[in-house]
Amino acid sequence: MDYNGLYNKILSKQSFLCVGLDPDMSLIPTHLKQLEFPLFEFNKEIIDATAPYAVAFKLNLAFYECEGLKGWQQFEMTADYIRANYPDQFLIADAKRGDIGNTAKKYAAAFFEKNDFDAVTIAPYMGRDSVEPFLDYEGKWAIVLALTSNPSSSDFETLKISDNNNPLFKEVISRTMEWGTKDNIMFVCGATKAQKLTEIREICPENFLLVPGVGAQGGSVEEVSAYGMNNRCGLLINASRSVIFAYKDKKTGNNAGINFSKDAAEAAALLASEMKCALTKRGVTLQ
Amino acid sequence: MDYNGLYNKILSKQSFLCVGLDPDMSLIPTHLKQLEFPLFEFNKEIIDATAPYAVAFKLNLAFYECEGLKGWQQFEMTADYIRANYPDQFLIADAKRGDIGNTAKKYAAAFFEKNDFDAVTIAPYMGRDSVEPFLDYEGKWAIVLALTSNPSSSDFETLKISDNNNPLFKEVISRTMEWGTKDNIMFVCGATKAQKLTEIREICPENFLLVPGVGAQGGSVEEVSAYGMNNRCGLLINASRSVIFAYKDKKTGNNAGINFSKDAAEAAALLASEMKCALTKRGVTLQ
Repeated sequence: MDYNGLYNKILSKQSFLCVGLDPDMSLIPTHLKQLEFPLFEFNKEIIDATAPYAVAFKLNLAFYECEGLKGWQQFEMTADYIRANYPDQFLIADAKRGDIGNTAKKYAAAFFEKNDFDAVTIAPYMGRDSVEPFLDYEGKWAIVLALTSNPSSSDFETLKISDNNNPLFKEVISRTMEWGTKDNIMFVCGATKAQKLTEIREICPENFLLVPGVGAQGGSVEEVSAYGMNNRCGLLINASRSVIFAYKDKKTGNNAGINFSKDAAEAAALLASEMKCALTKRGVTLQ
Repeated sequence: MDYNGLYNKILSKQSFLCVGLDPDMSLIPTHLKQLEFPLFEFNKEIIDATAPYAVAFKLNLAFYECEGLKGWQQFEMTADYIRANYPDQFLIADAKRGDIGNTAKKYAAAFFEKNDFDAVTIAPYMGRDSVEPFLDYEGKWAIVLALTSNPSSSDFETLKISDNNNPLFKEVISRTMEWGTKDNIMFVCGATKAQKLTEIREICPENFLLVPGVGAQGGSVEEVSAYGMNNRCGLLINASRSVIFAYKDKKTGNNAGINFSKDAAEAAALLASEMKCALTKRGVTLQ
């Protein structure tokens, strides 16, 4: 899927919500835990419930890898389920991979050939070698970490570079933009630093930004949209815990978790309605 | 395993060789390709043949992930095989993971609980949050990327920081050292930049360095030892392709690959003998 494809999907759905499938085994409802594939069963219901409000799903590899072989199996089952049932959803492997050229090629093959993801998140530390193999696939994307949502993003990402006094994350954005186009490169920019999105938009006015950190981490759709949206939206806002574990916030006693997918749908619908407002405000609407 | 444990192993074996198990499906001998678990069968023979010369094995996740579920299965089979048969080998998951705190915890669980690795390689871009969960395990290590062996390591790793005019990789080393100890933190420093090891030793005289890039990438044991060894060795030199695919350099016609493990053992033995010389030269020997 290219830039226009993603833009048109956002336009027609009036949402730029990405639902993060981070199925933490310790948080999924009790009645699912005894099933053979609890992570997959959980995801399946979440996907069915939230797909109407979302344009993308993001699978965070850590939550599958920590369950070993069976976790990886459920990772692939989830990706296959989305591909088969919701082929128009933009599918992201949140893997934060990054390695030398010959190894990066294998990671690209893992997510773009062996599995059919649209995009993979990439750690930029090792430079161009580690990003380029992902750009060799037509219609696929590298989503490069720029300014992340976690507190310790200030350890290295915001260090100033001697050459131009720019923070490292800006250097990452400018250099990475030379390696690809707006059709195959996005950047991860955390919602917890929403005001920084204005500065980021000065360097990359067009590229899509994948913005995690809304909900559990404290960012808001309104703020992210105010500072980060461009004339063609240019945003995918990810919500993981605040959507998929919305049921945890309900006081339902012994029945806790029975309606987890309904609670997730409500949380996703609320975010999507906020997104529709933001798109309307900006004039990114169907004529 | 702690610092002394690793040092004693190196001392008794007079080798600091780490064999990189990157079983590229396109390079493994033809006669193995029709087996049910070709990567594992290949690894098993390589492990048996090279274990006498090595103190560590490093599994690069990309080469397993690109084979999908069956690849992950063979990754775990390989790790289990080493644990069961060579429990004294230091076992590294070359995963280059790095994510926000709650996710990094899951990655740590994947490699230290679900699997029984001694160490995981970590990408430092996202800062302290992404490293600390790996340090919460007694006797386990985080091996943090500092100066890597690939050509584009100059894109970001060597950018000078305004505060102190240090290159980024030195900043990564100094800050990371504050989060752990020499018993749980190593750094990845490429053999292709051997002379830089002198500068790195000025900042971290004691920490072990994991040095890839010997062999296929052009680095040498002699150079790495001259610039990077300390009084307790402090080095693990990794060789992957030049050992495990040594058979590719032999002109054996139709029999190519039949003796792949013997060829790997010879390549490993040669590196180990170079390492013994380097240890002797430095006086790191059993009294």
